[in-house]
Amino acid sequence: MTTLTSDMGWSNAKKIVVRGHDLNEEIIGWLNLGDFAFLEITGRKPDPQESTLFNALLAVLVEHGMTPTAMVARLTYLGAPESMQAAIAAGLCGMGTKFVGTAEGAARLLQQALPLGSTEPLDVEAAARAIVAEHRAARQLVPGLGHPVHKPVDPRATALFAVAERTGFKGRYVALMQAVSAQAELALNKPGVLPINATGALAALASELGIPWQLCRGIAVIGRAVGLVGHIAEELRNPIAERLWVRTDAEVSAHLRPAGPEAKQ
Amino acid sequence: MTTLTSDMGWSNAKKIVVRGHDLNEEIIGWLNLGDFAFLEITGRKPDPQESTLFNALLAVLVEHGMTPTAMVARLTYLGAPESMQAAIAAGLCGMGTKFVGTAEGAARLLQQALPLGSTEPLDVEAAARAIVAEHRAARQLVPGLGHPVHKPVDPRATALFAVAERTGFKGRYVALMQAVSAQAELALNKPGVLPINATGALAALASELGIPWQLCRGIAVIGRAVGLVGHIAEELRNPIAERLWVRTDAEVSAHLRPAGPEAKQ
Amino acid sequence: MTTLTSDMGWSNAKKIVVRGHDLNEEIIGWLNLGDFAFLEITGRKPDPQESTLFNALLAVLVEHGMTPTAMVARLTYLGAPESMQAAIAAGLCGMGTKFVGTAEGAARLLQQALPLGSTEPLDVEAAARAIVAEHRAARQLVPGLGHPVHKPVDPRATALFAVAERTGFKGRYVALMQAVSAQAELALNKPGVLPINATGALAALASELGIPWQLCRGIAVIGRAVGLVGHIAEELRNPIAERLWVRTDAEVSAHLRPAGPEAKQ
Amino acid sequence: MTTLTSDMGWSNAKKIVVRGHDLNEEIIGWLNLGDFAFLEITGRKPDPQESTLFNALLAVLVEHGMTPTAMVARLTYLGAPESMQAAIAAGLCGMGTKFVGTAEGAARLLQQALPLGSTEPLDVEAAARAIVAEHRAARQLVPGLGHPVHKPVDPRATALFAVAERTGFKGRYVALMQAVSAQAELALNKPGVLPINATGALAALASELGIPWQLCRGIAVIGRAVGLVGHIAEELRNPIAERLWVRTDAEVSAHLRPAGPEAKQ
Repeated sequence: MTTLTSDMGWSNAKKIVVRGHDLNEEIIGWLNLGDFAFLEITGRKPDPQESTLFNALLAVLVEHGMTPTAMVARLTYLGAPESMQAAIAAGLCGMGTKFVGTAEGAARLLQQALPLGSTEPLDVEAAARAIVAEHRAARQLVPGLGHPVHKPVDPRATALFAVAERTGFKGRYVALMQAVSAQAELALNKPGVLPINATGALAALASELGIPWQLCRGIAVIGRAVGLVGHIAEELRNPIAERLWVRTDAEVSAHLRPAGPEAKQ
Repeated sequence: MTTLTSDMGWSNAKKIVVRGHDLNEEIIGWLNLGDFAFLEITGRKPDPQESTLFNALLAVLVEHGMTPTAMVARLTYLGAPESMQAAIAAGLCGMGTKFVGTAEGAARLLQQALPLGSTEPLDVEAAARAIVAEHRAARQLVPGLGHPVHKPVDPRATALFAVAERTGFKGRYVALMQAVSAQAELALNKPGVLPINATGALAALASELGIPWQLCRGIAVIGRAVGLVGHIAEELRNPIAERLWVRTDAEVSAHLRPAGPEAKQ
Repeated sequence: MTTLTSDMGWSNAKKIVVRGHDLNEEIIGWLNLGDFAFLEITGRKPDPQESTLFNALLAVLVEHGMTPTAMVARLTYLGAPESMQAAIAAGLCGMGTKFVGTAEGAARLLQQALPLGSTEPLDVEAAARAIVAEHRAARQLVPGLGHPVHKPVDPRATALFAVAERTGFKGRYVALMQAVSAQAELALNKPGVLPINATGALAALASELGIPWQLCRGIAVIGRAVGLVGHIAEELRNPIAERLWVRTDAEVSAHLRPAGPEAKQ
Repeated sequence: MTTLTSDMGWSNAKKIVVRGHDLNEEIIGWLNLGDFAFLEITGRKPDPQESTLFNALLAVLVEHGMTPTAMVARLTYLGAPESMQAAIAAGLCGMGTKFVGTAEGAARLLQQALPLGSTEPLDVEAAARAIVAEHRAARQLVPGLGHPVHKPVDPRATALFAVAERTGFKGRYVALMQAVSAQAELALNKPGVLPINATGALAALASELGIPWQLCRGIAVIGRAVGLVGHIAEELRNPIAERLWVRTDAEVSAHLRPAGPEAKQ
């Protein structure tokens, strides 16, 4: 039988070692949570520039008001206050293809055109044209572009690219993502309709940090876990889930209820 | 119909505001993830001491090797690689009473004895004696004390209390938790068997930061979300879930299988 | 190393055996889903009376209109249509103490007073008085009694007890649950306010079938999984989750938005 | 503001109506769980043939021994025994593309070739050739064919098709699925390697019943919820999750532990 192995960590009575570092001596009190996440994913501590950029990526999807995920966490907590973890988990289940999966898709495109760690030359414009042409041929949207509300630019992408500039991570993945956006707008002949959105920027910058595309959704999930705890904290102070449920139930079934006295029974 | 309200945030095309702060101007690139979590939960940015302590609390339960939650995340990802968010969510569902719920229980005890924000005097020894006596009368364990492996002290508690000392947060909740541990050992007449464990320390320090007991489990859940993404990152590099499943299935059903040729069909 | 074992089933290329029965020869096409659930939980096929009663227990919590769990499943499906399983899972996470956990609690009371399989005599009235007195002393509600809407009787309890009568399962657990309801109303001196509700009836009848109290929540969870698939089927025909989200988000943040032109950006 | 509507049901104090039927008068005690699921999904009660076939579809994925989903449910229950619903939910999160998503994919192919309700003529052989050719051109596997263990035939498919024959539902979708299997083997020139598997048979028969392809995963999820409750029932009788965890943790980290006395601390 092959032995299974994991390098994540080990412990005994006196110590806990995480990816080669003593949890109690080197991490607790010394690494912020984003840096610890970088260590968990990459196996090493970030330098200050990486720390700033990676924490920025984690921040971008934490909170966006009363999202479906926040509603889900609150409605689940209403029914199962004994297991707050299940309310957070339920909320996270909705971080799928429609809202954040595009980060995964966009990063895959970028890393297929320019494999992680590659130092080969890349014709950015040609690669962007090819990506756009393929998606048009298959009648698919290019992931990471466009937003129904945040237009003609997504301010989160602007903010992330400013951090990339400041930390020295505005490299070829950013250039490629920007070229893809430009080519997509050119193909439609509609400037300003397909700016890089938050997930496209996240995809480009995770790639700059060497993070495989399969993990981009995970960055968003960590961030949103933070936001959902925030929403449950507010639900404790200002509960709204029960009223949201009761009035929604009444509204959707009003057309089924008999008129007259029976309706009120 | 009453209008429902939330103060978490709002957005329009150009900006996203989170708890009164502009996400793109003030948060992305400026706050680390732990600080953003503090803002989400408390409504204000932490000062440097609070930042250090709160990030330490978030770190304490991120990673502890191949826990049940890590096994769950990996086994779920095996079946549903299209939805990494569901693998993280599944793992988090196990952050319940057996492993981390004690943080919630311990913080409740502390905050019942000394309400958050109270400046009333407290006889710490008397309060500790009362807590221990009540639990003995009800034949219940005091949450936050003792650990099957990490003994006679839990090194994570030591590390957290050192951070509390360094940041100026070693206050009355820490004193009360320590007194509860001492009283519990005195009642058993077994010194060293009921040290404060990681969840007890987390409970005391979350209380020092003014965080309601109901949210302590959430702090652990945020941290573990980080650890589970780390485990899925490793599962991509070094997959073990499938072999774990196949050999476990063979082992547990071996006694049911017919001997001879039929068994191999 | 101890070998781990499970008696749930085994398979080879040609057959799949479930709790001693050939899945393809004896189950598929022959057992309805409720009967299969009975086999999974008890290890034997039900007789016709048990089949009728157990299917009735599974049916009672399938559907109750636009519950929080249904809202959660729909809102999660909106974000992650690629993983319908996660939408069902998210919905089920809310089947906790507030709505169905009372079945677990009520069954525990009944089975503590009258252990499963016991043939000892039981003074039903005395046992009921003791249960009510204990809960009053601890200032706790007796689980399984009362309902905010379904009063003065819960019609689901009436329906379940009729099935129990018809199938010959109206035994001592039903008598004890009824006596508890009567004693609780007597103690309050308010007839009709604490009828047995759906979860109380479920608890009594699961006990009649010899099912341990710890599994009562599972019966409700199986049923609700059916209901949630029904809601997602309707969401495909008549999508409402997106509009529910957009209008709720606008409502809850209206007080935060600046007046004038900026609000519309 | 548009009013949102749902036809799933409504209730008042005295009655609960589900898809037009009185829950307490017409369903509880009269419909088995599979029939209730049919009503939830299609809006009408099944006739006896539909009842037999639909219950068979629900049964096919209930139990397959110690699957990853069963391991997940047990490991989650270990950490959160207070919320059995979350353990079931965690297990269901793994019912994704790798194991059951193929039912969805296969049903989509079938319903694209032959829309639900269509009475147009169909050249089954030509349609099958086209499906196989498209998948070969895109270098994709045809979903619903082949199984690593159950070969050269999947006995669950055989069992389901026998039920279809017996109930009069062996129609054009079954013929098309069989033709796809034959064409796929012909294209590989390897007879017997790509038989219809359980998910392919489920896809064909759900289509015969008029169920949209998007809901096929839901049928599997309902069934597996039953199986997971069965596994938790066994975990209560014969707990294995804790030992599975402890020994797995020790195994995977053995190579990291220092030799000598420190390892045992």
